[in-house]
Amino acid sequence: MSTEKDFFRHELAIVESARIGSGTRIWAFAHIMEGATIGKRCNIGEGCFIESGVTVGDDVVIKNNVAVWTGVTIEDGAFLGPSVVLTNELEPRSMFPKECATIVVKKGASIGANSTIVANRVIGEYATIGAGSVVTKDVPPHRLVYGNPATPRGWMCTCGRKLGFTADAAACQCGRKFRLTDSKTIKEVS
Amino acid sequence: MSTEKDFFRHELAIVESARIGSGTRIWAFAHIMEGATIGKRCNIGEGCFIESGVTVGDDVVIKNNVAVWTGVTIEDGAFLGPSVVLTNELEPRSMFPKECATIVVKKGASIGANSTIVANRVIGEYATIGAGSVVTKDVPPHRLVYGNPATPRGWMCTCGRKLGFTADAAACQCGRKFRLTDSKTIKEVS
Amino acid sequence: MSTEKDFFRHELAIVESARIGSGTRIWAFAHIMEGATIGKRCNIGEGCFIESGVTVGDDVVIKNNVAVWTGVTIEDGAFLGPSVVLTNELEPRSMFPKECATIVVKKGASIGANSTIVANRVIGEYATIGAGSVVTKDVPPHRLVYGNPATPRGWMCTCGRKLGFTADAAACQCGRKFRLTDSKTIKEVS
Repeated sequence: MSTEKDFFRHELAIVESARIGSGTRIWAFAHIMEGATIGKRCNIGEGCFIESGVTVGDDVVIKNNVAVWTGVTIEDGAFLGPSVVLTNELEPRSMFPKECATIVVKKGASIGANSTIVANRVIGEYATIGAGSVVTKDVPPHRLVYGNPATPRGWMCTCGRKLGFTADAAACQCGRKFRLTDSKTIKEVS
Repeated sequence: MSTEKDFFRHELAIVESARIGSGTRIWAFAHIMEGATIGKRCNIGEGCFIESGVTVGDDVVIKNNVAVWTGVTIEDGAFLGPSVVLTNELEPRSMFPKECATIVVKKGASIGANSTIVANRVIGEYATIGAGSVVTKDVPPHRLVYGNPATPRGWMCTCGRKLGFTADAAACQCGRKFRLTDSKTIKEVS
Repeated sequence: MSTEKDFFRHELAIVESARIGSGTRIWAFAHIMEGATIGKRCNIGEGCFIESGVTVGDDVVIKNNVAVWTGVTIEDGAFLGPSVVLTNELEPRSMFPKECATIVVKKGASIGANSTIVANRVIGEYATIGAGSVVTKDVPPHRLVYGNPATPRGWMCTCGRKLGFTADAAACQCGRKFRLTDSKTIKEVS
């Protein structure tokens, strides 16, 4: 994570953090609070809000109007589509505040446009959440899920394409090969 | 409802109303139109829009990116999660404008993140709408609903926790006790 | 499409395009990029983002917080409700960029609040998408669809009202008459 100052900040963005990686771009009406950390080469869309204490890895794309609350961690190469909604409260009441919950979006995972992620969940490495989903359970690595509630619908390659399995083997057009080890896991093979 | 001026307004918020209660905080890129009324100790998140004619009670939390249209009433202690979407048109067409509809969010109710509320609905006192729901019917007091469309899934305590009923009685860990009076009503008992 | 300068721009909107039609209003925290084209008498709500290369027709209403990406076309008289989410990537991964996809919203169509439209779809003339839907297939003209995924639920008049068919004929209270020609088409008749 870099603390260099060679990042782009739109003149109508609010950047209060000193920990923004080089090559990162922050667009209009976005707000990065003091105490948030953003990696290198990220793209933070218009209207995004990154709260204090959040860590965003390198090469992360966050499209417009996404709020990333205290308690959320976004790892390298993750993609959050437009208007993705994260949460950090399980039983909200204005007059009865409770403990802050967490969400982790692991390396290379993609969250489709306008999806909602319930608090205390982990989105696995290279998982994909289809657009408009409501995620109520943890999502295993490379899993494709969608719907409300989101349920398993297939497996995704590291490159983002859907994998077609014949028995327990799949080859992506990008050249990567995978093997299904059990109903909850796939593994890249050479 | 206070009209005192001792509220916090981020320097990039637009506040055109003179009726903002004391202790209320209004964050960046929010816009409170002239003729809107906001109670005391509210928290109005970034990117929120409160249209003319709206009344928001005391102790209300509205998270980021929520638009509250003319025709909507939000009572004391309500919680609107991030990117909650309210509406005031039932059959919209750009070239065929129709009458403005209403929504009432009653005292202490909570609307989960990214939920959508169809026009002409009432969300009852201390009801909870789960995240990512689409509410197409009125929600009774203390009812938990979720899904698309949202359907009844249980009952919630005043404090926001889910109640577990044994026969027609439930006790919350907060100490409150409830009795089920019929399939559509629960009542707090001592 | 006009290129006159007699449109309204809120002082906190960013308008970089020279192609904005007369009578159009652009509200606070909206951003119209250079190379976007907006027709006459449109209403572009707060927090909207219109990307370079987009064409928006005349008499279009786009409510708050809608991002219209490169690859999207919005025809005359369309209505996009608050927080509608459009997309232009089918298999997003931050580190594996792919080709930009398209969406077309045809003349007079209405997209309900907080709906999500998957990339590479066409929303037909005078179709209506109910609030909170996830649209994964093309929508025929005048079709009403809703749900996640959105499925056919009826037919809509040009004026936006739901049509009640008796056998293959329907008359709207606005005076228009329609005939059902097959399971996928209705036709206005005199």
